[in-house]
Amino acid sequence: MVQKKIKNNTMNIYRFPTKDNWKDLVKRPVLEQQEISGLITEIFTEVEKNGDKALIEFNKKFDKANTQRISVSKEEIEDAQKQIKDELKQAILQAKENISIFHASQKQEMQKIETTQGVVCWRENRAVEKVGIYIPGGTAPLFSTVLMLAVPANLAGCKEIVLCTPPDKSGNINPAILYAAKLCGVSEIFKTGGAQAIAAMTLGTESIPQVNKIFGPGNQFVVAAKEYAQRFGVAIDMPAGPSEVLVIADEKAVPEFCAADLLSQAEHGSDSQVVFITTDLKVFNETINAVDQQIKELPRNEFAAQALENSSFILVNSLEEALEFSNLYAPEHLILAINDFEKYIPEIQNAGSVFLGNYSCESAGDYASGTNHTLPTNAYAKNYSGVSLDSFVKKITFQHLSKQGLRNLGKTIELMAEAEGLFAHKNAVSIRLK
Amino acid sequence: MVQKKIKNNTMNIYRFPTKDNWKDLVKRPVLEQQEISGLITEIFTEVEKNGDKALIEFNKKFDKANTQRISVSKEEIEDAQKQIKDELKQAILQAKENISIFHASQKQEMQKIETTQGVVCWRENRAVEKVGIYIPGGTAPLFSTVLMLAVPANLAGCKEIVLCTPPDKSGNINPAILYAAKLCGVSEIFKTGGAQAIAAMTLGTESIPQVNKIFGPGNQFVVAAKEYAQRFGVAIDMPAGPSEVLVIADEKAVPEFCAADLLSQAEHGSDSQVVFITTDLKVFNETINAVDQQIKELPRNEFAAQALENSSFILVNSLEEALEFSNLYAPEHLILAINDFEKYIPEIQNAGSVFLGNYSCESAGDYASGTNHTLPTNAYAKNYSGVSLDSFVKKITFQHLSKQGLRNLGKTIELMAEAEGLFAHKNAVSIRLK
Repeated sequence: MVQKKIKNNTMNIYRFPTKDNWKDLVKRPVLEQQEISGLITEIFTEVEKNGDKALIEFNKKFDKANTQRISVSKEEIEDAQKQIKDELKQAILQAKENISIFHASQKQEMQKIETTQGVVCWRENRAVEKVGIYIPGGTAPLFSTVLMLAVPANLAGCKEIVLCTPPDKSGNINPAILYAAKLCGVSEIFKTGGAQAIAAMTLGTESIPQVNKIFGPGNQFVVAAKEYAQRFGVAIDMPAGPSEVLVIADEKAVPEFCAADLLSQAEHGSDSQVVFITTDLKVFNETINAVDQQIKELPRNEFAAQALENSSFILVNSLEEALEFSNLYAPEHLILAINDFEKYIPEIQNAGSVFLGNYSCESAGDYASGTNHTLPTNAYAKNYSGVSLDSFVKKITFQHLSKQGLRNLGKTIELMAEAEGLFAHKNAVSIRLK
Repeated sequence: MVQKKIKNNTMNIYRFPTKDNWKDLVKRPVLEQQEISGLITEIFTEVEKNGDKALIEFNKKFDKANTQRISVSKEEIEDAQKQIKDELKQAILQAKENISIFHASQKQEMQKIETTQGVVCWRENRAVEKVGIYIPGGTAPLFSTVLMLAVPANLAGCKEIVLCTPPDKSGNINPAILYAAKLCGVSEIFKTGGAQAIAAMTLGTESIPQVNKIFGPGNQFVVAAKEYAQRFGVAIDMPAGPSEVLVIADEKAVPEFCAADLLSQAEHGSDSQVVFITTDLKVFNETINAVDQQIKELPRNEFAAQALENSSFILVNSLEEALEFSNLYAPEHLILAINDFEKYIPEIQNAGSVFLGNYSCESAGDYASGTNHTLPTNAYAKNYSGVSLDSFVKKITFQHLSKQGLRNLGKTIELMAEAEGLFAHKNAVSIRLK
């Protein structure tokens, strides 16, 4: 049983839970899963059979949109440029610049290594040739995700960068999405959303190229379709779950800032996860109060209030304990609102992206600091990294053995091959050294 | 229709196929899939319910082995050391040294990047804490795969490295597997194989720790179980298919060497894929003859002969054409048995590992050159890299914004958040700059 669980309005409050209870506290709420696998299979079959025509039908059916053609025209893209205010353009440019700088810094110099005399090994990067980016429609036009995916795809050298996003009821795409796509070198943009967009990029249609890897967030249909797409040899960025933040605060933290960060996560959707952990009773109480105050001002407060129902406010004995809990939880976003955060960095084992100190709010990383906002959720930070330049390249190993190199290694290969019972492997060496 | 398809004994021979036919030639044969998903689910349920006891039962049922305990004892490991001949020990040590050198060279220095004044971003590596390695039993004791997986796991700093492998009928593990595991810092070794081993590492039992990521090859039950394991939040190395090699040869290639390489791939199993492409008619004919000759000498020639039935020998007009075909096929192993291979390296887009020149046989990379032999098959080289040090680490992004840093970026974040309709994201900045 979890100790001292108190419902404060919508928040779950835990004071000094014992470690026995942590197992329950780190659990993500189980989402109600609709049985949708049959629908996903149907959509893939329909897209395979009828291509663009199927997509146009799905636009009518699911997005109530009349779209005569699927591909976005040059005129529509040009038009979008005019609809964006200059100050938003400037903002997008600054964000793009920072994302470019940080992701370009991830290029790895590859050295040639002579492991044995005459045996030289190295790796070379090759871009994934064709990538697909999915941008959801719905309650918020996520043009920032266009930057986060198209910028590194472009830096990596992907030959084709395809973007799919659902049209609104008038059959249009949000101009900020079109502006960002053009700016970041997206090759082609298509008006299709949901599972059918994923099916189209997986199988190809008359208009939409078949891609090698699909990136981007989405609702449960998109997530299930990305899962399903892998059966056709397509790769995906990572498995997905609802977005989440864990904030660790000490006595120097500013409760209003903490509350603002918790709410900025909570507003993403009713299934968002928010965890607040502090060692300081005053900060604990004041943050809870600040959340109660700030939520009233939010236009999306109905989402935030629902998200807070899944959320935890936890008082602990020490920052070490807080970090230990955090590593068990493995949050997508981790904010260290603590004074000597440097000291605790080595303790962080499992997290997607980490925000240090009182001025590193999550929204900085969501938009413009330069780090990627496509991150592992649902405790996947234990075994996955967020999207980076690496997500858009493959690393091919190369090796060259000179005749002398093979001589230096030959006996070893022959002995090992023989011990594994693989005589043709052995013979490939022996025949060369005869 | 594929041009000039001629059956020469077991080999499929194509002379100058047109590009229209390539689509068919790059297809992997569809394997007969048994419907095994029900069985996999049953095995997971049984392991979840009965833990070690279930594994002991499965050892009896599937491996005809009596095992009173699942974990390999210290005495068994000590004993194995004595059973290995010194010259094989020396060979394993040399291979380990080369694999260590090459994988250690993959450590990436992480720089801190100031993207905007006062905004500092960087990445840090953290090892995946618990990893599981699966080593098949069956026709060959693959101790080389122990090296390929445990060496980088250890270099990465994984805290727990668990190894599962099926016992033989006497309940023992091949001593070379035990020797290699001990040598490479495997934490614990367990006698369990097949889908039940994957279930055990996914769910944990009394003896076997639950791991975060599972690596290693296996038969269709293992592959299906790794697929299924991902539903429980476990990551896997990569999707799997039968092993394959594509050899490109010019007029300077040595037919006997090419034939030996093709057969060393073919002996892996009856489903192995072998493709030979050359521009030279003499090399073409002589390689086919050499395969016919060499196969007679092989102890595993029944596998090799079956594998050759799926294989293609293709004569083309130019090396450019050969490379283009290879990129479409995306081979796990690519051998460039050509004189000026340097010139063609930039043309290679899709391949797992590449072997350059007449003395770089695949078996060098399979055992001892230093490169990893866990590589993408089945055209997954289009979107996956082989196993490397990166496979055992996650990269966490960090960011620190000073108050001035947030001021420099604040307007941008506020404008973008507002344009996305996310006002709590905006407020997290505004409240700090007030």
